[in-house]
Amino acid sequence: MTTPSNPAPLRLGIAGLGTVGAGVIKIIERTNELLAARAGRPLEIVAVSARSRDKDRGVDLSPYGWEDDPVALAKRDDIDIFVELMGGSDGPAKAATEAALARGIHVVTANKAMLAHHGQALAETAEKTGASLRFEAAVAGGIPVVKALTEGLAGNRITRVMGVMNGTCNYILTRMESAGLPYDQVFDEANKLGYLEADPTLDVGGIDAGHKLSLLAAIGFGTQVAFDQMQLEGIERISIDDINQAADMGYRIKLLGVAQRTENGIEQRMMPCLVPATSPLGQLENATNMVVIEGDSVGQIVLRGAGAGEGPTASAVLGDIIDIARGIRLPAFGQPIARLEKAVAAQSAAPAPYYLRTALEDKPGALAKVATVLGEAGVSINRMRQYGHDSDAAPVLIVTHPCSRSAIDAALAALPATGVVAVDPVALRIEEV
Amino acid sequence: MTTPSNPAPLRLGIAGLGTVGAGVIKIIERTNELLAARAGRPLEIVAVSARSRDKDRGVDLSPYGWEDDPVALAKRDDIDIFVELMGGSDGPAKAATEAALARGIHVVTANKAMLAHHGQALAETAEKTGASLRFEAAVAGGIPVVKALTEGLAGNRITRVMGVMNGTCNYILTRMESAGLPYDQVFDEANKLGYLEADPTLDVGGIDAGHKLSLLAAIGFGTQVAFDQMQLEGIERISIDDINQAADMGYRIKLLGVAQRTENGIEQRMMPCLVPATSPLGQLENATNMVVIEGDSVGQIVLRGAGAGEGPTASAVLGDIIDIARGIRLPAFGQPIARLEKAVAAQSAAPAPYYLRTALEDKPGALAKVATVLGEAGVSINRMRQYGHDSDAAPVLIVTHPCSRSAIDAALAALPATGVVAVDPVALRIEEV
Repeated sequence: MTTPSNPAPLRLGIAGLGTVGAGVIKIIERTNELLAARAGRPLEIVAVSARSRDKDRGVDLSPYGWEDDPVALAKRDDIDIFVELMGGSDGPAKAATEAALARGIHVVTANKAMLAHHGQALAETAEKTGASLRFEAAVAGGIPVVKALTEGLAGNRITRVMGVMNGTCNYILTRMESAGLPYDQVFDEANKLGYLEADPTLDVGGIDAGHKLSLLAAIGFGTQVAFDQMQLEGIERISIDDINQAADMGYRIKLLGVAQRTENGIEQRMMPCLVPATSPLGQLENATNMVVIEGDSVGQIVLRGAGAGEGPTASAVLGDIIDIARGIRLPAFGQPIARLEKAVAAQSAAPAPYYLRTALEDKPGALAKVATVLGEAGVSINRMRQYGHDSDAAPVLIVTHPCSRSAIDAALAALPATGVVAVDPVALRIEEV
Repeated sequence: MTTPSNPAPLRLGIAGLGTVGAGVIKIIERTNELLAARAGRPLEIVAVSARSRDKDRGVDLSPYGWEDDPVALAKRDDIDIFVELMGGSDGPAKAATEAALARGIHVVTANKAMLAHHGQALAETAEKTGASLRFEAAVAGGIPVVKALTEGLAGNRITRVMGVMNGTCNYILTRMESAGLPYDQVFDEANKLGYLEADPTLDVGGIDAGHKLSLLAAIGFGTQVAFDQMQLEGIERISIDDINQAADMGYRIKLLGVAQRTENGIEQRMMPCLVPATSPLGQLENATNMVVIEGDSVGQIVLRGAGAGEGPTASAVLGDIIDIARGIRLPAFGQPIARLEKAVAAQSAAPAPYYLRTALEDKPGALAKVATVLGEAGVSINRMRQYGHDSDAAPVLIVTHPCSRSAIDAALAALPATGVVAVDPVALRIEEV
């Protein structure tokens, strides 16, 4: 704990100078003395790498070395940590991360896509060389949830991890509700505000949030990252009608991730759900993130904060850097590689009530035909409403009693044959969280 | 990161076998293999100490050594961590903690009173000998807030820490509201349920929560623990009328702690306040705790969970133990002792609106006299209500415009001289959190 009076600086190489990378540099420049006191040694930015050296990022890069190639940066002999803030599951980010870890250089990254796809292999390399692979910034921005799960709650058998972890989707859904605007219009707004990834499917398709959840599931359950087992649905088909009708019933629609240990395996899903409007998850506004962790001893812990943005994400990156400066060394997923089991995907999610929305053609007996198909699939109806309408098709809303997803899927598959369904049905799980 | 195939066990001596101590033993017995995988080495309980060896605690103590004297336990050569779960700011807890730290033995404790009063001296001893002094369980039970503040958010200048951190007080206040019961009756209920400390003033006087806040303030602001600078008020004078009238105005009353860095020093207060009923703090029910941390980069982080009880508190103790097993070594308050500044108490809290409740005698001009006194003290009235009444005194409720606490105190001091005040006034700060 006693540190020498002139401890060696911790030398950083930062690859990727978008908002987060520039944010990290700004924080280090602004509060270096405080950071050094906490870290036990000064932080020193040795060199940086990005696509363009000349772009104005609000920071002066002249004090730092420059590498055009991030892999060359990762291979420099004069850095202790390679800070990977480029993004992308493969390509330069992965090549540079591999190069650093293979040499025993610590890596701090915000790259959920890379970790969801290659986390296991990267953690193996890190374990072999004794390097740290840290990724607080990859999950829920500034919320220190990776640390809470890996360290603070390490005395628990984790039973469930839930969360709203894509700020863009939550912004779109809450903005649709508050402004009464359709999905496409709010999507365009979000795009203009720069809230969407270059490939928007990553956000609105639930992929980005799914990446994050897969990392938390691996840590929590002691399993290998199994993003390929994630049940994924995006928010693209959520209409303003769905939002309003959910609100009428006391619910709000959230892109909700749930990972839980069940008797027949690990269940992982990221999909729009109805949650009670008065619950903490239901009340989450705009781009805020929330993660709920449940353990056998601690009960339920809820963490809320900004899920993205320069400051919050840079805060998470700095937390990892300071940990490494302090000498904290942990396995990437909290346990040695050999202890991480292959995740067995649960055959089916626990039964739940479902919200179904469709529209029926104006034909005699249409509603009865739908009810019959549902009954034959084993789906029991709790509430059903047909709305008045100007068009040829009558909007219909059904809330089921708890049933399995497979029963819902069977019903959805059988509905077209009735010849009365005018609109592809939307089925959303209702989670009483 | 690679661990030897048969790493040496981490040897524990546990002093204090109340619900938390017994809970720690149960968790270690139940999940030892998982804990060992996470910790990198097995946890081994070597010996325990408590007042009585024979009391039934639901755990078999026969596998463990026994010490009547916790100081003797702290001095044993065969322990690596002394786990202090006895409580009490002085006496055996302090003597044993000092003995362990002086010998370089790590200490994990849940003892907020001891740390609020002696944390600085104990941290100095720990720094000298290289021992760790860890206290996650001392603040907000199972919520990993010490870790979040010390490590996860170490990249931030912390600007404010707030929280509801005494579950018993929150239970009493929410139970008064939900059941419509007076303070004394709910206090007795809580006592029968075992929710109160042996000295209930620690809970309802705000002292216990104040202890916790003083520790978070020290970590957040890099100052020496300054519990003596905490402005403390308890909940003893909160009436069911206050709760109902606050609710009428859209507020709930919470024992709220606020520690913030201001231009003229560190402000620390723990007192009942009105907070918006729809805010996360306002919605906190029963014994749940919530801590809000604000930093210059991360913005606002909110943490919620069980603030007490066997499982949650034991979870926090295990988190600290596993950290030490993993080789994590940090200064007790996140920075070396020499860096911790003496806290300068802010002269006055930021102005805020206040809620005033009193009762006036049925005399002509009574209300005018009170209004005059308030005006002379510099307190401007926003809203004032006099209620219908059966008794001789008329209940009066006043909401002020934002003003300083000293103006309120001046007004309160001048009120008796009006000769019309029948009930000692209650003044509560309104926090728009």
